[in-house]
Amino acid sequence: MRKVLRAAGVVVLGAVSVGGAVRAGGQATGGGAFAPVYELPWWPAAEREAYAAYEGRLNAIPDAQRLWDWHDALASRPHIAGMEGDPETIETLAAAFSGMGLEVEVHRFWAYLSRPIAAEVEVVGGGLLPLGETPLAEDPDTAKDPIGFGWNAYSGSGEATGEVVYANYGRKEDFERLAALGVDCTGKVVIARYGGNYRGFKAKFAEAAGAAALLIYSDPADDGYVKGLMYPEGGYLNDSCIQRGSIVTLASPGDPLTPGVEATRDAERLDPETVALPRIPVQPIGWGAAHTIMRRMAGEFVPQGWQGGLPLPYRVTGGDGLRVRVKVEQERRIVESANVLATLRGGEEPDRFVVIGCHHDAWGHGAADAMCGMISLLEAARAFSERAAAGERPRRSIVFAAWGAEEHGLIGSTEWVEGNRARLEAGAVAYINLDMASMGPNFGAAATPSLRRVIVSAAKAVPQARDAQQSVFEAWGKGGEPSMGELGGGSDHLPFVAHAGVAGAGFSGGGSPGVNYHTAYDTLRWYRYVVGEDYEPALMIARMTVATAARLADAPLLPLDPAAGVSSLRRHLRELTKRGVETGVFARPEVGGANAEGGGLGPVAAELAALDAAAAACEAAALRARDALEAALADGRLSGDALVQANVALFAAQRAWSDEQGLADRPWYKSLYIATDPDTGYGSWPLPGLRRALEDGDAAAVRREAGRLEGVVRGVSGVIIERE
Amino acid sequence: MRKVLRAAGVVVLGAVSVGGAVRAGGQATGGGAFAPVYELPWWPAAEREAYAAYEGRLNAIPDAQRLWDWHDALASRPHIAGMEGDPETIETLAAAFSGMGLEVEVHRFWAYLSRPIAAEVEVVGGGLLPLGETPLAEDPDTAKDPIGFGWNAYSGSGEATGEVVYANYGRKEDFERLAALGVDCTGKVVIARYGGNYRGFKAKFAEAAGAAALLIYSDPADDGYVKGLMYPEGGYLNDSCIQRGSIVTLASPGDPLTPGVEATRDAERLDPETVALPRIPVQPIGWGAAHTIMRRMAGEFVPQGWQGGLPLPYRVTGGDGLRVRVKVEQERRIVESANVLATLRGGEEPDRFVVIGCHHDAWGHGAADAMCGMISLLEAARAFSERAAAGERPRRSIVFAAWGAEEHGLIGSTEWVEGNRARLEAGAVAYINLDMASMGPNFGAAATPSLRRVIVSAAKAVPQARDAQQSVFEAWGKGGEPSMGELGGGSDHLPFVAHAGVAGAGFSGGGSPGVNYHTAYDTLRWYRYVVGEDYEPALMIARMTVATAARLADAPLLPLDPAAGVSSLRRHLRELTKRGVETGVFARPEVGGANAEGGGLGPVAAELAALDAAAAACEAAALRARDALEAALADGRLSGDALVQANVALFAAQRAWSDEQGLADRPWYKSLYIATDPDTGYGSWPLPGLRRALEDGDAAAVRREAGRLEGVVRGVSGVIIERE
Repeated sequence: MRKVLRAAGVVVLGAVSVGGAVRAGGQATGGGAFAPVYELPWWPAAEREAYAAYEGRLNAIPDAQRLWDWHDALASRPHIAGMEGDPETIETLAAAFSGMGLEVEVHRFWAYLSRPIAAEVEVVGGGLLPLGETPLAEDPDTAKDPIGFGWNAYSGSGEATGEVVYANYGRKEDFERLAALGVDCTGKVVIARYGGNYRGFKAKFAEAAGAAALLIYSDPADDGYVKGLMYPEGGYLNDSCIQRGSIVTLASPGDPLTPGVEATRDAERLDPETVALPRIPVQPIGWGAAHTIMRRMAGEFVPQGWQGGLPLPYRVTGGDGLRVRVKVEQERRIVESANVLATLRGGEEPDRFVVIGCHHDAWGHGAADAMCGMISLLEAARAFSERAAAGERPRRSIVFAAWGAEEHGLIGSTEWVEGNRARLEAGAVAYINLDMASMGPNFGAAATPSLRRVIVSAAKAVPQARDAQQSVFEAWGKGGEPSMGELGGGSDHLPFVAHAGVAGAGFSGGGSPGVNYHTAYDTLRWYRYVVGEDYEPALMIARMTVATAARLADAPLLPLDPAAGVSSLRRHLRELTKRGVETGVFARPEVGGANAEGGGLGPVAAELAALDAAAAACEAAALRARDALEAALADGRLSGDALVQANVALFAAQRAWSDEQGLADRPWYKSLYIATDPDTGYGSWPLPGLRRALEDGDAAAVRREAGRLEGVVRGVSGVIIERE
Repeated sequence: MRKVLRAAGVVVLGAVSVGGAVRAGGQATGGGAFAPVYELPWWPAAEREAYAAYEGRLNAIPDAQRLWDWHDALASRPHIAGMEGDPETIETLAAAFSGMGLEVEVHRFWAYLSRPIAAEVEVVGGGLLPLGETPLAEDPDTAKDPIGFGWNAYSGSGEATGEVVYANYGRKEDFERLAALGVDCTGKVVIARYGGNYRGFKAKFAEAAGAAALLIYSDPADDGYVKGLMYPEGGYLNDSCIQRGSIVTLASPGDPLTPGVEATRDAERLDPETVALPRIPVQPIGWGAAHTIMRRMAGEFVPQGWQGGLPLPYRVTGGDGLRVRVKVEQERRIVESANVLATLRGGEEPDRFVVIGCHHDAWGHGAADAMCGMISLLEAARAFSERAAAGERPRRSIVFAAWGAEEHGLIGSTEWVEGNRARLEAGAVAYINLDMASMGPNFGAAATPSLRRVIVSAAKAVPQARDAQQSVFEAWGKGGEPSMGELGGGSDHLPFVAHAGVAGAGFSGGGSPGVNYHTAYDTLRWYRYVVGEDYEPALMIARMTVATAARLADAPLLPLDPAAGVSSLRRHLRELTKRGVETGVFARPEVGGANAEGGGLGPVAAELAALDAAAAACEAAALRARDALEAALADGRLSGDALVQANVALFAAQRAWSDEQGLADRPWYKSLYIATDPDTGYGSWPLPGLRRALEDGDAAAVRREAGRLEGVVRGVSGVIIERE
């Protein structure tokens, strides 16, 4: 049964100026009282009402029924990168964008992907364990197009039999704990639960510890019955569910054979034998299978925090009475896939552009991951296209991107960024990522500091999903200012932000009672049953995307905040300093601790203090400059060449955070502001060069990295302040 | 196999005065470096060394092999109050004390006890559930003397069949949450897990909510495999374990038919029909049985925090497809049991006395609850007796008490206190409770403020269990000052502290990996397997008891701190005020909120401020007085009549906290300083009258209770300050 509740579509009738902002009289079809507030400091006062009306017209276009239909078109069959369904998905997307009148490019790439052939897990003497999800009568998609057994892309191929060691989440600290307990993983089958880090690190640490094989399972305490009712009755994992996913952990994302350059058909490639891909067999399993193993374990009780939700006391070792055999057979080969890029050319500054992206590959049907974000992207694209066809074309270009092979390692986006870095560095205003964005009504965002102000402003003009009474801003901030975190790893924003230095944001929606991440239950039925049939979350994400992108693409003055990055630098600097004092790194002789009294900063203090002082001065000046620019713009004193120069400066202030040399230990990462956490993969490391130097207790490196950040601050100061 | 590691016995060779304290050269048989520190401000300086030597001789007596033997004698058979084994235990204890040369009184009482006859729990259409622990080959005591099915003393008798409602811990807030969720308990079989409150309140709240029956089970998240390996492999509960226990919740503890007076054979008794004992059937079960019920439940997922450790999503309701039948048959009748009291008469002030108590009844064998405390008590008694026989008799008397029928509701101790209140009020210096005290090496204590200083001083002279390198004080405080909480409910200190106003303390030992509370596995094998065969914890508790009691019984100046109670009053007053502001009670119109600006204290502020000011003055003066007394004592200026008067004052300062009228809503509770938490039973409510008034938002009552506490403070000031 198809049932779509009509969403509250906001139609702007007459915009009313309120203070520096424009308040539009909102009219929700549900009769709600929500009135969008337009804060538009990036427009001359005289133009704000016209822009607000335009944004209102744009955001009247996204439609719940269309979202439902896009979802049907994109998530009704499995479409794993490089496998059956992938070409059809690429075609469907190209046709969809073409149908909107956008300039479509199918950007093909040839990447080294892995493909499952066979897998077996057996308790020796106890039989084979199930490696696939139970098909459900309630959800025909789980039966008619089975996606096969669970697998981890890039697992080593081979077979191993050994005793069992339980490694909790398989984090760095978990393996350190095992070593402290005197547990030797050499030749063992390690079993670890999902959660706490990127699964690739579980495999990396297990292999480094000498494990013969790794099993990764989803624990009911993290994703199952401890959290709620299980699918198909509820939304959480059942005992058969297996989280698939890549386990690659190379020095940079993208095609493993073409680091740093685009994986064209004829690109120069590394010899696969020289690439540090996993060697041991790694197999994901459900907790039913894990239970079968773990209930036979016979060792000591686990340390504090290691117990999960299975009905037994967890043990560190299985003892010599339990042996498990793991066999994984995979093929790795160069496979063609593609990104789909659809461009709406800007009317006045076509070479400056905003990129909105979401990947199109999945581990199965991908109704949630990532297609619920893709449908919002499509409705945003349709909104801009329809208004452009009616003569309302934004000032700058907008590129809508559907990335391929994200799940194998951000491959499509990375290859495109690597092939278009010069163009991005010259003109990309921002990147907005919508991977799996529309999972529930609770809006969230992580963003580069320079984008946070425009995202917050957009949230004041968009109605909250399923609550016509308030804006996204009000619901998100719970009455106060919303908080936005730093971008970590794990999705397609990474090459934009970390490699090309583009300001980036990731949008998300949460609050739905369920988990189906990378399982065979990531189906349309699951999404509509758990997230809802009303498509209100996807509508909200589409509108947030429209409002944010329209401001970035259409404002005369670029909505990039020049002060926010420097403010954040100062905050992160304080945190790193505190961490350094706590961990005692400043007291180490090699950091000059011999002269550091009472746990103080010691000889590197001068560098850190100088950096903070420079940043403080820069922050204050950038705020004054920003206010001066906006005041001049508001009353028409900023236009023509002066406006062009102001935008060049604002763009340059964002670019100043990138350094072509990259991080000392990870040169692909060009941003000195942010990188992924090198020990977990998903988390973020602000000021990564300085943090690395501090973690290593390397005084010379601390000085060097503080100096590089002072260079960033001087760069920001140089472009902004001198024009004040 | 009987294996006792020899304990580190401290023998004082030559005491050396160190500053104000006496440091004795300790000689541990294990060769450890521990040296006891004697802080003895309650003795003239010239007498300290002699006392330290005496205490050293006392504490060389407790012996691990004796503890083992006492344990064998007392915990080798079940001995439930009023049932088989109870008279034998009473005899054994009387003989033990007599054998030490103590004056023994078997104090008989006749109390209204309950006795199990039959019980059945059945999933309708699904068969009967098990109601007893699995006998274990590893532990013959679980098989040869089975203690029968689990039961809750004072359950209603009857049979009920109904749908199921899960009520989490069955706390007040849990039933409030059920009501908020629209769940009607009327006629339902409520199932609640142990933990969070005294089980009697689970029954009381369930009955008040209209439940037809209550099942109480032990959840694996609280006591089972989530915590560690299960008995007999480890120490935690298995799926068959059932926590027995009383569910009586009357206005005062003790015999239900003789509140406030001693339950002699001929006492005037209430008509049982008029006493608010439970009416619905209440049955404790293991989590195996609970799982059989809960896995058939079909309702909504539970609220945050209600999920336990069973392998299923917990649900609030069972639905109409699940009906459970509960049948409980019990008999309530007046039964004879007894306390055993053994007195060592003091040499100089025989009418002043210290009581050391532990109950002797149990729910089965009771190796842990309470006999591991009783064996420490016996070794303390033996120490004092042996030294008295050698001519070293303490100044004041010591009463060693083995209480009967504690498990039914603190009956033996309460009846004795009710029958001896005048004597207690005239001469009881302190009560030390040892219920289940020797459960592990980590010492802990809760105490009336006036006793905290002497307990801390004792801890500096006693070696830490299993660590000959440090004192109990050092291990307990982890390098700092140890913290001592307030006494709550749940054991025999309550009538002494709350009814007779005696300064009280409860000692405990923790840190053993297991739980067997009130189950059939509370056996000697469990204790020796989980707590240990070395009896070091019991030795430590015996020595702490000896050191504390010897100081209280033998010091020329009573070791009752006159300032601590007032200091604590001030702290609790701040907490209550903060709580009142947070809960908004001060802003309510009936507390005068109409005049209370900004969540302030409003019109009652003056009373609370006056109370705090009076307490502050009293505290400072009491500290000065204490220091002056001790300084005078030290150099021999305090003796004769002046010393007698000082002790009268110190005793009176403790007595000042009692008010014959008792609490407004609980008149049996005479202490204005402390009472049990009326909503949980186990917790403590400091300043209970004032707290009740604040919780009720009753301004007149706040004024009245603040006035009563000012009366206490005046009383303390009157006896202490005037003698300064």
